[in-house]
Amino acid sequence: MMSEEIIKEMKERVYRANLRLSEEKLIKLTWGNVSEINRELCIIVIKPSGVSYEEMSADKMVVTDLRGQPIGDQMKPSSDMMTHAHLYESFPKIGSIVHTHSEHAVMWAQAGKDIPAYGTTHADHFFGDVPCARELTTEEISGEYERNTGHVIVECILERGIDYEAVPAILVKSHGPFTWGSTTEKAVDNAVVLDVVAKMAMGTEYISKSSLTKKIPQYLLDKHYLRKHGKNAYYGQ
Amino acid sequence: MMSEEIIKEMKERVYRANLRLSEEKLIKLTWGNVSEINRELCIIVIKPSGVSYEEMSADKMVVTDLRGQPIGDQMKPSSDMMTHAHLYESFPKIGSIVHTHSEHAVMWAQAGKDIPAYGTTHADHFFGDVPCARELTTEEISGEYERNTGHVIVECILERGIDYEAVPAILVKSHGPFTWGSTTEKAVDNAVVLDVVAKMAMGTEYISKSSLTKKIPQYLLDKHYLRKHGKNAYYGQ
Amino acid sequence: MMSEEIIKEMKERVYRANLRLSEEKLIKLTWGNVSEINRELCIIVIKPSGVSYEEMSADKMVVTDLRGQPIGDQMKPSSDMMTHAHLYESFPKIGSIVHTHSEHAVMWAQAGKDIPAYGTTHADHFFGDVPCARELTTEEISGEYERNTGHVIVECILERGIDYEAVPAILVKSHGPFTWGSTTEKAVDNAVVLDVVAKMAMGTEYISKSSLTKKIPQYLLDKHYLRKHGKNAYYGQ
Amino acid sequence: MMSEEIIKEMKERVYRANLRLSEEKLIKLTWGNVSEINRELCIIVIKPSGVSYEEMSADKMVVTDLRGQPIGDQMKPSSDMMTHAHLYESFPKIGSIVHTHSEHAVMWAQAGKDIPAYGTTHADHFFGDVPCARELTTEEISGEYERNTGHVIVECILERGIDYEAVPAILVKSHGPFTWGSTTEKAVDNAVVLDVVAKMAMGTEYISKSSLTKKIPQYLLDKHYLRKHGKNAYYGQ
Repeated sequence: MMSEEIIKEMKERVYRANLRLSEEKLIKLTWGNVSEINRELCIIVIKPSGVSYEEMSADKMVVTDLRGQPIGDQMKPSSDMMTHAHLYESFPKIGSIVHTHSEHAVMWAQAGKDIPAYGTTHADHFFGDVPCARELTTEEISGEYERNTGHVIVECILERGIDYEAVPAILVKSHGPFTWGSTTEKAVDNAVVLDVVAKMAMGTEYISKSSLTKKIPQYLLDKHYLRKHGKNAYYGQ
Repeated sequence: MMSEEIIKEMKERVYRANLRLSEEKLIKLTWGNVSEINRELCIIVIKPSGVSYEEMSADKMVVTDLRGQPIGDQMKPSSDMMTHAHLYESFPKIGSIVHTHSEHAVMWAQAGKDIPAYGTTHADHFFGDVPCARELTTEEISGEYERNTGHVIVECILERGIDYEAVPAILVKSHGPFTWGSTTEKAVDNAVVLDVVAKMAMGTEYISKSSLTKKIPQYLLDKHYLRKHGKNAYYGQ
Repeated sequence: MMSEEIIKEMKERVYRANLRLSEEKLIKLTWGNVSEINRELCIIVIKPSGVSYEEMSADKMVVTDLRGQPIGDQMKPSSDMMTHAHLYESFPKIGSIVHTHSEHAVMWAQAGKDIPAYGTTHADHFFGDVPCARELTTEEISGEYERNTGHVIVECILERGIDYEAVPAILVKSHGPFTWGSTTEKAVDNAVVLDVVAKMAMGTEYISKSSLTKKIPQYLLDKHYLRKHGKNAYYGQ
Repeated sequence: MMSEEIIKEMKERVYRANLRLSEEKLIKLTWGNVSEINRELCIIVIKPSGVSYEEMSADKMVVTDLRGQPIGDQMKPSSDMMTHAHLYESFPKIGSIVHTHSEHAVMWAQAGKDIPAYGTTHADHFFGDVPCARELTTEEISGEYERNTGHVIVECILERGIDYEAVPAILVKSHGPFTWGSTTEKAVDNAVVLDVVAKMAMGTEYISKSSLTKKIPQYLLDKHYLRKHGKNAYYGQ
């Protein structure tokens, strides 16, 4: 396949992945961005900056070099470009990166806590807790903020000895989630699952610590079950 | 207008109102039922019993007399018919009744608590707390259960001196909500609003008692706001 | 009816039931699976393993024998096949089994708690608390994991003396729900209801233990109600 | 462009913005209203009072002078007209105002609390906490209620020294949110974001104070991750 065709297909995938973020209700407005890398061609394709979903199209996706610089005359890439570029540089087996402000993942990020692995839904996709990286310092923020966001993510993963392929997601404190994968589809899947397990973990903590002694009275339980089931059933809404 | 035409229109309204319960996500499966009374013709129109929404049509709605007995050869009316009939008998200005198992209203009913009037969304529709009636006794349940459900509702409203037109909704303990109105559209509107205010009241209680001292650091607040707004803005997702 | 036609209809029902899991928002991605048994023909029909909903079709559903072995040249059955097979063997009146990772049921499973019967919505479908079975041991997991999941479910139901027809659902600890029924439609209905009652039970526990003394001031309640209702009403949004 | 054409376009934008409130699930029934000002033409365009979304159309939008009085023969403007008029008078850079009863923003309003800035999703749109203005007094309510609602909003913003352009939203205690912006699209965007950050803030407070010591057992984590990933993977739903 010629490079032009490869790039066209990358743009198409990145475009559709951005739409999927919206369909899966992971984002509002134009929040969120998806990128894909082709390490042989030394290019990254990413969503353009500040374009609404109505105006967006596959051919408007921006092609950059590995340092995140647009190649030729194109729209400006997403402002989070440098976070993506740094993660691609640090994690050589990543093929795609997704950033969202999905509600439940953000709740954990804002609380500054890892999402604990409470069950198999989590374990099927993330091999351990999803870490919450530290907040950036004043210096890191006043400098190259977006690139430094990438630094803080990589630092967290290396310091904790996490296998980035086995736990393809992280929260940035007070900010939100980044997920990745070998393909764009998998990176978006991981963003979908991350928000679900974030919601499930919250509910799990609530239910674990809650309890009531009262129940429905036995005679009301009997009445309702038996008017709908068995030989004396008579009920239909 | 001839009675036949009036009845046809009643059936059409009751049918559409049942569909709306589903569209508004107030019910699952075939839960819930809507009825409408015509006091001049001495008839009630209600959903048939246990018919799925796929099979339902306007002409399948059941016409009963004021005691809830189907007139002529028709399908069985909803099992909750006798609750409706008793409410129509007791509250002469009600034109329509709706019963759902909408999630948030049921949560309050299962907790056995009135939904407190915490704000204007509530006050716009319900002139005071929405009461939670007591549970039925063993005797009331083993007797005419559905009619006794009506008794318990009426008893609660009379004992508390509630104006049923100004508070057109009630919860039956361990069960769920009934709402009413002068027209079918208003009765369904009240079912919609009841679930919203039930959800809002729950969140209000949580937020009122919760607080954190920590916030986003000022420099991160500055960075994020100022990279998107004002003369040095540069950010687009 | 010839067996071929029976099998074709089983495949069609199992296929549509899998789609319904997605429509009812009980699953994400390809999570979840539905099977149906025909005890006369000694066959089980189940979703194939790891096929996306876009690629899926009725004729791709897999036909196995009662031990869960595909008959002839077919796709691989869902990995949870052996859990299904063991439940069919143990519970002779089950006609269909559904496994999901629906959010609220999983929250209770991850908390390791039964879902208490708090009201009539629960009682209409489940004749008592929905049990949470124990976690599998290391040995059970390193052995035939999926079949042992079936063992743990059956063990829980037998030990507690539960009537599996009257309580057609269970949670597996740290994992998620299984539901069943005499027909595929009923098994899916039970999965739908299970998640609703799981959500309602959580809210019931919260509301039961919460309360506020403050309310909306009486004069604001008066103003808002009376500007919309009665003879001096003037309000419209 | 002639004034007539300008007015036609304003009506079209205001109409579409009202529909968007419903699409974004910020309102139920006919709750909520949007207005737009043209300071050169000295006119405000707002939704008519109490018209259902089915009956609404762009040409039914009401044109008023800056005091909120309809110009010529038109429908009655939304009852909240005077709140809008007072805000336009007080905040000269506002081009559009939105009022909703969106669920999570109302929860904070009913609790009488500011929405704290807990993260970058908030900081991207609101440069600091979103304030909750005080409740109106009996006198303010029995007087010109809707205009006084505007007074209380302006009073809160001035007393706290808030830059209304940098924090384009407020909660009125026991009532709900108002948002604004330089354009109608931005005012609605702010209403959308406000409800999301209100929900996120609530979850953040919950997670911050919650924790569990128990986790999924390591062997179950291993089993589930490894049956789906790596060289010994065998699992598909």
